[in-house]
Amino acid sequence: MLQLKEKILEEGKILSGQVLKVSSFLNHQIDSDLMMEIGREIAKRFQDAGITKIMTIESSGIAVALAAGAALHKPVLFAKKHLSSNVSGILYQTLVHSFTHGTDYTIVVEREYLSADDRILIVDDFLANGKAPEGLLDLIAQAGAEAAGAAFVIEKGFQEGGSRLRTRGLRVESLAVIDKMDQDGILFRD
Amino acid sequence: MLQLKEKILEEGKILSGQVLKVSSFLNHQIDSDLMMEIGREIAKRFQDAGITKIMTIESSGIAVALAAGAALHKPVLFAKKHLSSNVSGILYQTLVHSFTHGTDYTIVVEREYLSADDRILIVDDFLANGKAPEGLLDLIAQAGAEAAGAAFVIEKGFQEGGSRLRTRGLRVESLAVIDKMDQDGILFRD
Repeated sequence: MLQLKEKILEEGKILSGQVLKVSSFLNHQIDSDLMMEIGREIAKRFQDAGITKIMTIESSGIAVALAAGAALHKPVLFAKKHLSSNVSGILYQTLVHSFTHGTDYTIVVEREYLSADDRILIVDDFLANGKAPEGLLDLIAQAGAEAAGAAFVIEKGFQEGGSRLRTRGLRVESLAVIDKMDQDGILFRD
Repeated sequence: MLQLKEKILEEGKILSGQVLKVSSFLNHQIDSDLMMEIGREIAKRFQDAGITKIMTIESSGIAVALAAGAALHKPVLFAKKHLSSNVSGILYQTLVHSFTHGTDYTIVVEREYLSADDRILIVDDFLANGKAPEGLLDLIAQAGAEAAGAAFVIEKGFQEGGSRLRTRGLRVESLAVIDKMDQDGILFRD
């Protein structure tokens, strides 16, 4: 997605530890028009996949998921990271390891919102090591639902998440795949 | 907003402790089409207010903020609740008390995304005691920016947040105001 790659080149900052900071438009501040365009691009790629619901994990996946959900006219379900007094139903839950924060956390969804009839599109802002989408795949499997694919705004192609998901047979669409980034700049996959 | 009130009556569940559970369409699962309609309604009410940016707090405000941002074609900035390795800039921060979780938490935004030229529209899913929007007002004041108003999907009119914000002179628009809720049902303000 050309518009996205241009924005990454213009505003992205490479921090230490192979962190790409895109918080000016993707996951702290959000460029609303670009985000809706991202949603339309994801919808275009999965329009014939029979998607019934979009799933993501709070927080930075929510905007991407809503943009895709609005374009596909399908509901969004975001897994929550913390048990809260507002999560009162019976839950599907699983453990996810975060390399960013160096810790494990539990993600949960209420069972009533995920059924064996669902064909789920997983959506997130980044694909790096793939632990977050693997957690969602676990929740989807617990419900007996089907994962129809996964869409990411930015994939770090030099980390293992993409190949891990594709090896499972999952259809993965990333709108910008970065093969290399360092002080010389960012190299996108064609 | 009639469509919203009908949805609340159809799907909302009143839990103990004056909690209204609307996680089937607002803040766990999201009805994408309704959410975009909510965004257009917020935009309509604030279209002449000179808004430069929408602000909310993660997580459940993000979808509402993006929907409003998409309709107004303005960026969204969501305050983060946790210090993370992806928040690297110099921060504005303040403490917010959560009645839901019975605890205090810190919210932060990076300084570079909030400037003295900004006219901010605060957006969130719920207005109850008003502690979250008051935290955002504090961040806005720290930046020397201006709060042009606040929009909420659901206001609990029987809690003090609405009157606290309006007493400060802030323009508050809530798409559904609930004056009373108990086992007999939900009573909306006209």
